[in-house]
Amino acid sequence: MKKIGVAILGLGVVGGGAYKILTEHREFYKKNHNLDISVEGVIERNRERALSLGIEESKIASNIAEICSNSEIDIVVETLGGIEPAKSYVLASLNSGKSVVTSNKELYCKYSHELEAVAKKNGCGLYFEATCVGGVPVIRTLLDSLQGNKISSLTGIINGTTNYILTKMTDCGASYEDVLKEAQKLGYAEANPTSDVEGFDAVYKLSILSSISFHTKIPYTEIYREGITGVDPADIRCGKQLGYVMKLLAIGKSGENGIEVRVHPAFVKSSHPLASVNDSYNAVYLTGDGVEDVMLYGRGAGALPTGSAIVADIIYCATHQGDNYSTFKNTEKAAPNTKFIKNFESQYYLRLSVKDKTGTLSKIMSQFSKHGIGISEVMQEKAADGKVPLMLLTHTTFENEVKKLVEEINASKEAAEVLSVIRVVS
Amino acid sequence: MKKIGVAILGLGVVGGGAYKILTEHREFYKKNHNLDISVEGVIERNRERALSLGIEESKIASNIAEICSNSEIDIVVETLGGIEPAKSYVLASLNSGKSVVTSNKELYCKYSHELEAVAKKNGCGLYFEATCVGGVPVIRTLLDSLQGNKISSLTGIINGTTNYILTKMTDCGASYEDVLKEAQKLGYAEANPTSDVEGFDAVYKLSILSSISFHTKIPYTEIYREGITGVDPADIRCGKQLGYVMKLLAIGKSGENGIEVRVHPAFVKSSHPLASVNDSYNAVYLTGDGVEDVMLYGRGAGALPTGSAIVADIIYCATHQGDNYSTFKNTEKAAPNTKFIKNFESQYYLRLSVKDKTGTLSKIMSQFSKHGIGISEVMQEKAADGKVPLMLLTHTTFENEVKKLVEEINASKEAAEVLSVIRVVS
Repeated sequence: MKKIGVAILGLGVVGGGAYKILTEHREFYKKNHNLDISVEGVIERNRERALSLGIEESKIASNIAEICSNSEIDIVVETLGGIEPAKSYVLASLNSGKSVVTSNKELYCKYSHELEAVAKKNGCGLYFEATCVGGVPVIRTLLDSLQGNKISSLTGIINGTTNYILTKMTDCGASYEDVLKEAQKLGYAEANPTSDVEGFDAVYKLSILSSISFHTKIPYTEIYREGITGVDPADIRCGKQLGYVMKLLAIGKSGENGIEVRVHPAFVKSSHPLASVNDSYNAVYLTGDGVEDVMLYGRGAGALPTGSAIVADIIYCATHQGDNYSTFKNTEKAAPNTKFIKNFESQYYLRLSVKDKTGTLSKIMSQFSKHGIGISEVMQEKAADGKVPLMLLTHTTFENEVKKLVEEINASKEAAEVLSVIRVVS
Repeated sequence: MKKIGVAILGLGVVGGGAYKILTEHREFYKKNHNLDISVEGVIERNRERALSLGIEESKIASNIAEICSNSEIDIVVETLGGIEPAKSYVLASLNSGKSVVTSNKELYCKYSHELEAVAKKNGCGLYFEATCVGGVPVIRTLLDSLQGNKISSLTGIINGTTNYILTKMTDCGASYEDVLKEAQKLGYAEANPTSDVEGFDAVYKLSILSSISFHTKIPYTEIYREGITGVDPADIRCGKQLGYVMKLLAIGKSGENGIEVRVHPAFVKSSHPLASVNDSYNAVYLTGDGVEDVMLYGRGAGALPTGSAIVADIIYCATHQGDNYSTFKNTEKAAPNTKFIKNFESQYYLRLSVKDKTGTLSKIMSQFSKHGIGISEVMQEKAADGKVPLMLLTHTTFENEVKKLVEEINASKEAAEVLSVIRVVS
């Protein structure tokens, strides 16, 4: 029986979940994995919280040096979040020869090159399954199961808070503000929800996932980002009628012309497997040249699901040798000559308010065709106050053309006004 | 750069797919995995087929001894299918110190204990991701990502042929026989479809997946099996009206009372993620005590998707050490004291033909309640020829009680006849 000592830095939701799983399954892991995993140290500012979880007083360390010098500890779990002191703690742990398991997406996204170099230097493992999509094993799948494929695209619903909010807005027709308040009450959204609702969280995760998928570091600064704060329930309703569901998508594509990476609200065809990923569930839809399409679905957050990913990494680390997961090849930047496509192609949904006057529609249509934008579907609602609500779905076209078109129409606002533009994934 | 020589035994659909992926991605693997993987030998009875794939004459071996004695070969891929000569070839390869990657579900299901013991003795790896669900990484996920969980249930659509047939029957209302013929024409069903349509293929896969999930060998002989040859389009149609979709499910559950394992057609609630797994797509829905629900979805068969799983195992084998995957602990039988539940609990759908006569319905209802079977939903269609079609959904009840009830009703057939009984998964 192999003995494995673990330290947990930060007993918040994820750290607490990992602690609970490890302690409750100790006999199970002895029996089935031949591993005796024990928590030998923690760092937690809130002493009471640590004690209430049943952690012995003597195992609560006052500083990272105590963890690093404790020879009973083999693996350090970092679940503090944020950059400091997490980064210093991780580096100190690696420099003292301990492998690290982290759930910290911001830290890993921004400093993986630095952490991986130090891990490599010290011959330690560095594992980060818990940084993305909770208990859903996307990272391991990319590294150990789809690694024979050229991945051409990944499309993910990878933030639980925004998916919860959009699902409720879809189900009840409520406004963003009202649903956010409810989500905060229920603990699905934080008091300061910016990181989730503005798409930063999804951007960090997409940076990590697309870096692995496309075999080059994708700096998060290259990722186009648009959150859900501006989503209008009217569009959700119109989309529904056209057979689409609104989701905050993280999209990564790699092809001959380069790489495109973006996070924004989008309409998904209701028959697409991603369309039925609701509430706080998450999913990642991957396309590879061998495997074709694969979707991984599950809980994208929460104490036990994310704790499950932490524990998976601990057991993997304890049972595998020489796997340092230096996947991004320790670079800070993308490989030389990597081209990022900003003027990407997509289908679009546009909602316009059009003057109820003969000839207006044909004038608008001619503006579309001037920009080479084909229209695949039109839905018109009843006029009110001399204005006709008009919804259009375009064929695949360039982002910049759509932007120019919208600017042009909205410059005069004489014949019509574009109220919303939403990208469409079919 | 590490050099890896591979032999492929059997260049059928899967072996041919693996060959294609390996040769077309050789530079890609050099660049991204630091591995130079080359195919150094094949065994293929159809010499023409091997040559047409571009394999050099000199690499076509006449027998397994040539493969075993070839020091350029590190990993042997077995994609022959069936028991012999596959088993002898795998054993010979392992005994000559080569690791083995197999897609052979029947062989692995029936002889894993023997193969694993020989792999262990020789310090070789034995990998079998491609035995189950094509390119979808279910086995790796269970072993390396959900291994910290107690898995309580797995529910899978794990046979492409039957899912294709049931999807078409659902979409077009066609009969089993008609759709089977079409599927055979399109290559989705074999000339002799027994293994697929009678559920044997799903049983082998369920044996493998549930053995890993539940940490004890689940002999395939313990698995209840019922195929789709008796599925009546009338039931598919009625199920649809009640909000259910018919699927051939492989179900494994593990709990305090024991383990239940079964393969049979079942109704799945149309809001369940498994309900939208259509055509030849497959999926496995897993529940663990930490991760909660996870679903893995993708192509369950085909040259490149299954080839992708083979290549994943090859790269994994080449980049990991000491992982022999002796997951069943080399036993032939289930662990002592394992209890298999045959009288399992489920919800049921029953379709009856009831005599159109006052009092008949109440008489039938009293028979249900005599057996302690509660009814949750009733749908009655218009009477014809003095008979009323009646569809019932029960609350959760015991299999044996339903069997007794059906026997009782059908013994006289005086008041009613039970035409179909289908288990329901909600």
